[in-house]
Amino acid sequence: MNVLVPRLAVVGVGLIGGSLALGLKAAGAVGEVVGIGRGRANLERALELGVIDRISDRVEDGVADADLVFLATPVQTLPAIAAAALPHMKSGAILTDGGSVKGSVVKAIEPLVPAGVHFVPGHPIAGTEKSGAEAAFATLYRNRRCILTPTARTDRGALELVRQVWRCVGSEVVVMDVQKHDRILGAISHLPHMVAYSLVNAVGSYDRYEENILEYSAGGFRDFTRIASSDPTMWRDIALTNREALLEMMELFERFFAELKEDVRRGDAERLFEFFLRSKQSRDAIL
Amino acid sequence: MNVLVPRLAVVGVGLIGGSLALGLKAAGAVGEVVGIGRGRANLERALELGVIDRISDRVEDGVADADLVFLATPVQTLPAIAAAALPHMKSGAILTDGGSVKGSVVKAIEPLVPAGVHFVPGHPIAGTEKSGAEAAFATLYRNRRCILTPTARTDRGALELVRQVWRCVGSEVVVMDVQKHDRILGAISHLPHMVAYSLVNAVGSYDRYEENILEYSAGGFRDFTRIASSDPTMWRDIALTNREALLEMMELFERFFAELKEDVRRGDAERLFEFFLRSKQSRDAIL
Ligand SMILES: NC(=O)c1ccc[n+]([C@@H]2O[C@H](COP(=O)([O-])OP(=O)(O)OC[C@H]3O[C@@H](n4cnc5c(N)ncnc54)[C@H](OP(=O)(O)O)[C@@H]3O)[C@@H](O)[C@H]2O)c1
Ligand SMILES: NC(=O)c1ccc[n+]([C@@H]2O[C@H](COP(=O)([O-])OP(=O)(O)OC[C@H]3O[C@@H](n4cnc5c(N)ncnc54)[C@H](OP(=O)(O)O)[C@@H]3O)[C@@H](O)[C@H]2O)c1
Repeated sequence: MNVLVPRLAVVGVGLIGGSLALGLKAAGAVGEVVGIGRGRANLERALELGVIDRISDRVEDGVADADLVFLATPVQTLPAIAAAALPHMKSGAILTDGGSVKGSVVKAIEPLVPAGVHFVPGHPIAGTEKSGAEAAFATLYRNRRCILTPTARTDRGALELVRQVWRCVGSEVVVMDVQKHDRILGAISHLPHMVAYSLVNAVGSYDRYEENILEYSAGGFRDFTRIASSDPTMWRDIALTNREALLEMMELFERFFAELKEDVRRGDAERLFEFFLRSKQSRDAIL
Repeated sequence: MNVLVPRLAVVGVGLIGGSLALGLKAAGAVGEVVGIGRGRANLERALELGVIDRISDRVEDGVADADLVFLATPVQTLPAIAAAALPHMKSGAILTDGGSVKGSVVKAIEPLVPAGVHFVPGHPIAGTEKSGAEAAFATLYRNRRCILTPTARTDRGALELVRQVWRCVGSEVVVMDVQKHDRILGAISHLPHMVAYSLVNAVGSYDRYEENILEYSAGGFRDFTRIASSDPTMWRDIALTNREALLEMMELFERFFAELKEDVRRGDAERLFEFFLRSKQSRDAIL
């Protein structure tokens, strides 16, 4: 039988890396999965859970025989891990990643790619607020989108294989320009996280004056702030590496929020109604 | 058999009013439910669905024989409806409400209450983003809190009965000062709605430059912005009537958001990590 990926190496066997391994295993599309990481504990748990078949202690060794190497560690760690992996990858092998920011990753990694090895930058639009191998599950990517951001240098055959990998786990693949990816994700994912983190901290700080305020939070607050439970390291790296697009979106948000605050201050019933209605209509359109 | 509420009149048979009627019916705690409203269509649907037993076309008639009158229309309409209802209520009857803001409601209604009739201001901390009789369901209040904000004038017996009504539908009743209610709800409910409405409008406006941006929104954005689908009339009224507490919270939020934006601008890795971690810890504490 010809599997799509005879040997897969996953660096960072957490929610994103672990779920790709499990999804490909469930589809019978992968031979062996080698797990590479930082701490030993998470890798051993991944082995126990059947997320990976084997642990490799060093990036250099773990990627050596892999047909596909998937990097799924926090965005800021990707360049150094790629630098360690690339010289040891076999000819024809493909390096891909799941980092949430693409511009900085492509800029840092592309110059390091040796002849005969291919790099396909990617980002699955899927996730939860949980982390680690324990959080991984085979159906995470089902009915989701995965964005691939090839550059002028990207090999078409390699792009096609990575596309098939994501299709195999149930995702629709969208190919997009690197900058466009970072602007869109800045708007629909990175900005909302900044808003949620700020909201929880603001309400939490108010708690000092009005005790146990969070106890009164009904489903609304809990659901609305779920994304503020996401991993601080992951989000620090995203905020640092998608800085420009994120700042632009944060400023846009501030303008809308200030406009609304002014309408509240003036008690402008008509403008308030219009503001809420416009938002409800956009929101209902994506239900 | 002695039911808790022989005759209940509900003015505004929507999500909140309809769900109280259904919950009391399911508990066998109510005799007849009279529905009073604005449009005929919603009341007829409520009758069909068994949410109410009878429609009354005028507030004055509908409340006449009621033991308990529950007002569940948008906050700004409550004083006028109370003014129409109160003179026609029988001696010993109780007026209560489910309005999301309490200060303005109590201030407007309390002076209108005639001797022999009792007023118990309330606010169930439960809801969804849906509206109308169609959205009502018997278990909405189960395992939720209901806040009652009695004043110095509130009759203890009436307070006790309203407390039993909410317990009957599965809620824990918390008695709280009016101003404290408005500050707490301003923080954990009204502020998040303002944030969600602003976020959807900001991202929606960006859509003009980057087409179909909302199509890329994964579960995160959808869940996070669910509350921006809430009824614009209801939220206009809340923003108008809880103006002071809301403005205070909006300013607090702005300060936190501006601090975060400054950390993003400076690329301050340590402060970003600390900001996200603090938020995650508060959020995880209320899981
Ligand atoms: N979560 C989402 O919603 C989501 C969605 C799309 C893309 N992404 C992206 O996917 C990547 C992984 O995110 P995730 O949610 O899967 O995080 P995660 O569950 O925390 O997994 C990350 C894994 O990387 C390992 N790791 C961390 N730093 C490392 C380093 N310097 N060297 C080697 N391994 C390291 C961690 O190992 P230890 O356990 O030993 O620390 C952990 O197992 C990030 O780039 C993120 O931006 C996330
Ligand atoms: N939704 C929540 O999450 C929530 C939670 C707690 C408290 N509350 C409060 O509960 C109240 C009702 O909210 P809801 O969510 O139940 O809204 P809803 O589903 O829209 O129901 C409101 C009902 O009031 C009727 N109505 C509107 N204006 C009226 C008027 N001037 N005279 C008579 N009837 C009128 C509407 O009838 P028509 O169909 O004819 O327009 C509708 O049936 C509001 O004060 C709100 O602040 C809401």
